[in-house]
Amino acid sequence: MITGSIAAIGAGLAAIGAGLGIGRIGGSAMDGIARQPEAASKIQTAMLIAAAFVEAVALFAVVVALMGNG
Amino acid sequence: MITGSIAAIGAGLAAIGAGLGIGRIGGSAMDGIARQPEAASKIQTAMLIAAAFVEAVALFAVVVALMGNG
Amino acid sequence: MITGSIAAIGAGLAAIGAGLGIGRIGGSAMDGIARQPEAASKIQTAMLIAAAFVEAVALFAVVVALMGNG
Repeated sequence: MITGSIAAIGAGLAAIGAGLGIGRIGGSAMDGIARQPEAASKIQTAMLIAAAFVEAVALFAVVVALMGNG
Repeated sequence: MITGSIAAIGAGLAAIGAGLGIGRIGGSAMDGIARQPEAASKIQTAMLIAAAFVEAVALFAVVVALMGNG
Repeated sequence: MITGSIAAIGAGLAAIGAGLGIGRIGGSAMDGIARQPEAASKIQTAMLIAAAFVEAVALFAVVVALMGNG
């Protein structure tokens, strides 16, 4: 019989979401800093803002999964 | 027996949505700032507006999942 | 009969998320350092910050999966 809490699946899905989102943002930021190193601070600031949006939802989703742990 | 609340799946799916949406928006914003660093503030403002739309739905979905926690 | 805990699937999904996210960030950082070796320190700093965001969610998801182990 399979045991355990379904919360594990939800937390894993949230991690996939964070990986897709922050991966795309961070990857493009790396490309951008390499193309315009003098704009590195602007790019890094915008990267952090965008990544924080994704991070907020993903962490909140993991906490909701944790709270639903049977 | 598998225990826990299906709310975890919903929250995880919402995080995937946020990752796909904000990832695409933020990634293209990074590309844009790298190409035209003097337009960084305009790009960042538009990025925040677009990301806020995705964020609103995703956070609301996580809250709905949390409320349905069995 | 299938036995074991569903936590294994959740932990695996979290690892996929980390792979997608940090893989994209690290891969683009490698491309960037190869293109502009004089910007290597800036790129490496930004890479660590972005990777830490993904890592945080993925590790937290694995811990939640572990806690839901039946």
